[in-house]
Amino acid sequence: MLKIKIEKTAHPKPKPTGPLGFGSVFTDHMFLMDYTADKGWHDPRVVPYAPIVLDPAALVFHYAQECFEGMKAYRTAAGRVQLFRPDKNGERLRSTHERLCIPPIPVDDFVQAVKALVAVDKDWVPAEEGTSLYIRPFTIATEAQLGVKASSAYQFCIIASPSGSYYPTGIDPVRIYVEDEYVRAAPGGTGAVKCGGNYAASLLSGEKAHRLGYGQVLWLDGVERRYVEEVGSMNCFFKIGGVIRTAPTAGTVLPGITRMSCIELLEGWGYPVSVAPLPIEDVMRADEDGTLEEVFGTGTAAVISPVGELKYRDRAAVINGGRIGPVTQRLYDTLTGIQYGRLPAPQGWITEVE
Amino acid sequence: MLKIKIEKTAHPKPKPTGPLGFGSVFTDHMFLMDYTADKGWHDPRVVPYAPIVLDPAALVFHYAQECFEGMKAYRTAAGRVQLFRPDKNGERLRSTHERLCIPPIPVDDFVQAVKALVAVDKDWVPAEEGTSLYIRPFTIATEAQLGVKASSAYQFCIIASPSGSYYPTGIDPVRIYVEDEYVRAAPGGTGAVKCGGNYAASLLSGEKAHRLGYGQVLWLDGVERRYVEEVGSMNCFFKIGGVIRTAPTAGTVLPGITRMSCIELLEGWGYPVSVAPLPIEDVMRADEDGTLEEVFGTGTAAVISPVGELKYRDRAAVINGGRIGPVTQRLYDTLTGIQYGRLPAPQGWITEVE
Ligand SMILES: Cc1ncc(COP(=O)(O)O)c(C=O)c1O
Ligand SMILES: Cc1ncc(COP(=O)(O)O)c(C=O)c1O
Repeated sequence: MLKIKIEKTAHPKPKPTGPLGFGSVFTDHMFLMDYTADKGWHDPRVVPYAPIVLDPAALVFHYAQECFEGMKAYRTAAGRVQLFRPDKNGERLRSTHERLCIPPIPVDDFVQAVKALVAVDKDWVPAEEGTSLYIRPFTIATEAQLGVKASSAYQFCIIASPSGSYYPTGIDPVRIYVEDEYVRAAPGGTGAVKCGGNYAASLLSGEKAHRLGYGQVLWLDGVERRYVEEVGSMNCFFKIGGVIRTAPTAGTVLPGITRMSCIELLEGWGYPVSVAPLPIEDVMRADEDGTLEEVFGTGTAAVISPVGELKYRDRAAVINGGRIGPVTQRLYDTLTGIQYGRLPAPQGWITEVE
Repeated sequence: MLKIKIEKTAHPKPKPTGPLGFGSVFTDHMFLMDYTADKGWHDPRVVPYAPIVLDPAALVFHYAQECFEGMKAYRTAAGRVQLFRPDKNGERLRSTHERLCIPPIPVDDFVQAVKALVAVDKDWVPAEEGTSLYIRPFTIATEAQLGVKASSAYQFCIIASPSGSYYPTGIDPVRIYVEDEYVRAAPGGTGAVKCGGNYAASLLSGEKAHRLGYGQVLWLDGVERRYVEEVGSMNCFFKIGGVIRTAPTAGTVLPGITRMSCIELLEGWGYPVSVAPLPIEDVMRADEDGTLEEVFGTGTAAVISPVGELKYRDRAAVINGGRIGPVTQRLYDTLTGIQYGRLPAPQGWITEVE
């Protein structure tokens, strides 16, 4: 158990009015905890939201020894505030820390920290349909020296941002560009963890997709550029001839918590789920022979994002007439139902913030 | 031409006494320049060395949109201060910016900025044998919002650190571990540019090598894990049967300025140089049949670093009896001779700081 000090702001900010965007308005407080070699992780505290002050030689600015998590707090119709599987974010952060040589934070401490911040800023959890409080835990290397080595000092920080509905005008399928020039991850690299570098590397491809008129990219594997991996910042599922297929996460694909939850729900509903390498040609061939039934991305931001079109080289596959399919819709309704407390949750999926 | 404002510190720090390390003591000043969408790059200035203050949501902390350069200022016996091919660092930074969707800085502005900082902190360029002023230009994304997209605001910064001789007790060959588990770069990724994420990804492998008793790792290519790429933060050369071989940089290997200079010198001296994919088996076979004559790394920090041993799986190749070879020595003497003004420089290699 952390002993978290709470220092409340003397100058609460006005809450945003009007439609909420994503990730640009922040609550009154943040959680901080420091690491040094002699003290370990220490001084956990909730303090007023304030700038981070670092020496220009801090390692985070040079060698990107930094990582993050992404999760949400949801307000139920009854006014309660709840988190969705926060322990899974804690476990993923721990494995990211390990890959980046950052000392671990116990999962229980992580969950406690998230709950402490959300409890203090509870009034910031919005209540309108589809809105939530986006929570961003992140760790940065703070030692000020330029040798390429793991930092001896870190700061773990949690900030939070009230966020609008991802689908303010109803669920709108995205058009996806299959990226076969740039690569997101390769075996032996960092694709399976949530480090900053993965996202910096993806920006150019995202800009290219936008220029070509697509909303996101579908990444192929870094070795053969043949197997489907992820869609932008989401995992990706394909329903082909009745079977629901998704890439294994081993080494190169981020193990999404929404992905994991979808697999568990689908298996519970009796759908055949195949977690195995899936060549993009098989997807395009399924489109040709009419067996490509549904495609969707999964991630905390959108929960479920139906894919309406998939463009690979000179072929554009239009999926289910460009409309959301029934399995996609059922997953969306079920997950959001659980998150907002409208449906009962499987054991351990919901953590209430008192 | 930039109009650089100079604000000198009112509190100069004492210069370090005793042996200098690497990258932990900084000069009195730093160079800063800001970018915003409406103003472009603006407000170039040399100011007292001071902390960087950023919103916790600044993109550099989350998606590692950040990159850097590394170069040195050398003091000649006559007391002059000079830079080695700074335009090449400016060109490489430009290509790194491009890969990371960061607006370009003109090469001339880059060189002018470096010269301006070194001129103000000229007294910090140490004079002892083998010492230098290490210069660290870097760019960070400063926009405070959490969407995964290229930042609309940046800061370009240059800091400088008086550094000790890399070889205070004479040139000591390094022992290298050939890494076939972790991967540094893959085609379509960011291996050919100097972004922070590449270095965060390399830390775990570096720790493994140290644990096993090796100084650095030799990276293999990310697709077949077969072709030699780089040594830690250096490019790598192999003299095999009279031919000097090094990996092509296309896409996955950092185009080192020391590497480029070595190739130009070697070709000028009449050595056959082969820039082509080189399988690690060929290197180990050359060791077996006695034709592996020399191996060395090249980079700004060490200039030339002879490799005394190469460990690949269960075979350890000892190179030239673990001692520096004649070509390695000649390159070291020539490059350091040019850098410290003891030898005449090829056209354009030396820029004096007035
Ligand atoms: C690259 C990537 N893949 C997949 C996901 C989905 O993960 P989760 O469902 O845990 O949000 C994310 C994060 O949201 C991501 O950044
Ligand atoms: C990965 C990597 N390779 C090679 C080099 C060598 O480049 P340069 O000779 O320009 O210092 C560096 C930087 O020093 C590096 O970081």
